[in-house]
Amino acid sequence: MKPYKEMSKEELVSLKAELEKAFEDAKGKGLKLDMSRGKPTPAQLDMAMDIMDVLNSDSDMKTEAGIDCRNYGLMDGIPEAKQLMGEMMGVPADNVLVYGNASLSIMYDAVSRSMTHGVMGSTPWCKLDKVKFLCPVPGYDRHFKITEHFGIEMINIPMTPTGPDMDLVEKYVQEDAAVKGIWCVPKYSNPQGISYSDETVRRFANLKPAAEDFRIYWDNAYVIHHLYDDKQDEILEILSECEKAGNPDMVFEFCSTSKVSFAGGGIAAMAASKANLEFIKQSMTVQTISYDKINQLRHVRYFKNLDGMLAHMKKHAAIMRPKFEAVLEVLDKELTGLGIGEWTRPLGGYFISFDAMEGCAKAIVAKCKEAGVVLTGAGATFPYGKDPKDSNIRIAPSFPTPEEMAAATDLFVLCVKLVSVEKLLAA
Amino acid sequence: MKPYKEMSKEELVSLKAELEKAFEDAKGKGLKLDMSRGKPTPAQLDMAMDIMDVLNSDSDMKTEAGIDCRNYGLMDGIPEAKQLMGEMMGVPADNVLVYGNASLSIMYDAVSRSMTHGVMGSTPWCKLDKVKFLCPVPGYDRHFKITEHFGIEMINIPMTPTGPDMDLVEKYVQEDAAVKGIWCVPKYSNPQGISYSDETVRRFANLKPAAEDFRIYWDNAYVIHHLYDDKQDEILEILSECEKAGNPDMVFEFCSTSKVSFAGGGIAAMAASKANLEFIKQSMTVQTISYDKINQLRHVRYFKNLDGMLAHMKKHAAIMRPKFEAVLEVLDKELTGLGIGEWTRPLGGYFISFDAMEGCAKAIVAKCKEAGVVLTGAGATFPYGKDPKDSNIRIAPSFPTPEEMAAATDLFVLCVKLVSVEKLLAA
Repeated sequence: MKPYKEMSKEELVSLKAELEKAFEDAKGKGLKLDMSRGKPTPAQLDMAMDIMDVLNSDSDMKTEAGIDCRNYGLMDGIPEAKQLMGEMMGVPADNVLVYGNASLSIMYDAVSRSMTHGVMGSTPWCKLDKVKFLCPVPGYDRHFKITEHFGIEMINIPMTPTGPDMDLVEKYVQEDAAVKGIWCVPKYSNPQGISYSDETVRRFANLKPAAEDFRIYWDNAYVIHHLYDDKQDEILEILSECEKAGNPDMVFEFCSTSKVSFAGGGIAAMAASKANLEFIKQSMTVQTISYDKINQLRHVRYFKNLDGMLAHMKKHAAIMRPKFEAVLEVLDKELTGLGIGEWTRPLGGYFISFDAMEGCAKAIVAKCKEAGVVLTGAGATFPYGKDPKDSNIRIAPSFPTPEEMAAATDLFVLCVKLVSVEKLLAA
Repeated sequence: MKPYKEMSKEELVSLKAELEKAFEDAKGKGLKLDMSRGKPTPAQLDMAMDIMDVLNSDSDMKTEAGIDCRNYGLMDGIPEAKQLMGEMMGVPADNVLVYGNASLSIMYDAVSRSMTHGVMGSTPWCKLDKVKFLCPVPGYDRHFKITEHFGIEMINIPMTPTGPDMDLVEKYVQEDAAVKGIWCVPKYSNPQGISYSDETVRRFANLKPAAEDFRIYWDNAYVIHHLYDDKQDEILEILSECEKAGNPDMVFEFCSTSKVSFAGGGIAAMAASKANLEFIKQSMTVQTISYDKINQLRHVRYFKNLDGMLAHMKKHAAIMRPKFEAVLEVLDKELTGLGIGEWTRPLGGYFISFDAMEGCAKAIVAKCKEAGVVLTGAGATFPYGKDPKDSNIRIAPSFPTPEEMAAATDLFVLCVKLVSVEKLLAA
């Protein structure tokens, strides 16, 4: 089929009629599918159920060093959990704090603390006229919600195939002291599945921020979430790169087992320089006596080490891969060459990113919904929910089955075609 | 023995020599005991070990309504956990949010959120020149640390046998719009074990605060932590009292199972009016996708309801009671009539409060430490760690055995006597 833009008006009108009929047929099927959120599917959660047997009433509840996990204490995590989460991030255990069940809470906490207490002695942000964050787009809606919630001005930074546009990042960070942070998902980014190139990571590590309290918010959410055994992205380890560059304190790294063990009951961690951790612990010691060490112990005894986690993630990949491939197969077959959309082919993570023709995303999402397929709201991948081009759509293949994903994507491409034709006819 | 204050100088000098010898003997025993923190003892934790068997790899991980606790969602807690924690506090489940493992974190969060976002639409406290909290004294050091951490000015309110001095509370709350909160442990207070009288609770509920964003921070930490079956304090339920008084939004209540199941792995909750909860959820939805629902499910399936918790707490009482009685027996026997100290006789909670002669608390704690018994630092029960009279000492009997507690208290009374004699001689 030829590109839509090269079609005559008559061809488009005739195509539109055809697509409308197909859409009515599709609506009649009564689909009810949700590809809106990056939720693990029950089969993935089932794989981790042996974790529930690790501790029972006969278990020794002490850490290797003899600390009773049932009682108060060890505010910043049990040593073996620091070790495990450190291995996951590729950093020493000494640079790790282990928290409760959600890395999102740690990120919120990091921003909230900066608002009220500054960063390692800097002026609390709530005392400043203006605080800004850089937001690589498309990106993760929940990151943007945190900064929006605290009234932080967000600046869009376009993503490229190697990571955020680093010329722009350098310009903002190095020239504007109001820029205090940047949200990054450096590996298998949300939603594009892009992994930052070595050059990108090194340019991050070598930033010379105008603000002493600028930090890179490095959300390594998909650090071991590969789809393939033989094709895997790896990125440079940011803490050591920052240290090499003479910027040891410039990064906060976050990760969790939410998409390894249980999305509702995993463990989460943060990594940073010791100077950062010392400052953070001044608040932490006021905030809690300890996080749930029993769940930390459960995870450590189950996974043992990074190899244990990687072996587990291979099982996840076997579930996720067919779903991604089902989506890509339909997109490739139905949309290649039409010039009405582009999409990513991630090797890991939880999402496929789709860019429709400008001004079409909202209409496509609405059309899909009309026929029973729920997508992430158009615009959600941008700060303030506003995609300036109304183009980006995030596809989350994890929850439905491969068959459901194929059916949902069939409908999706139909909606893309129909909305694109309407757009071209209206132009 | 006659009161020390009625002794002649000669009598005191001779007594001092005798006590010094006894102290040297005691030092020689090489005691090593800690009665500094309100930590459950391993025997209490052992009693809850069956909780570890409640969920295993064969378990149905869904709530009664069919929500999978292993996955994302139900940000504010599973319904049955709201029900359980609501029963514990005596409030409807609809007024409850269930969080992670620590009520202290919920309190920190409540103050932190007020700093950055105000309370139900009020000006964020970080934008105000001055924010003040009332602090009934002696009180809980970790409460005071939270307000100190946020630069909130703390005002001491003396405790009476029926609760805080309500004349003073009313005066401050009703006249000063900078007063935004008061820290309360209304039942078996920390450290005195005092329970607020009905009149006190009603006067709280009927406050007419100058500040619209004034809240009572009602830390019901020891709500079911009785020592006796036949002698128990009960207090009025504050949410309904506030509602009756036309102040439905004036209270935040906190509780947890830290001293019911596991101090390091329980569940914690907050109760408030629906208007408060709606406002809090605006932040919560940014802060997390959900807390650990698996641990919520574990607790609900184990305890089932309030009766299950109360039955469990009877077992705790059987362990705690002899420790409290061991302390009181020594205090009664050794110090009655000497006029050098007063102490409380709580019917529940985790502490006994001791008031030494003015200017003696620090010296007593130091003496005890010299001979191997660690007490909570003198002053800790007051804001900024400053006891104006240097008189109050918190005794935490929970962790050591009854025999150890008796030995520790023997040393304690010896130190009280010695320091008191020295004080009187120096006067």
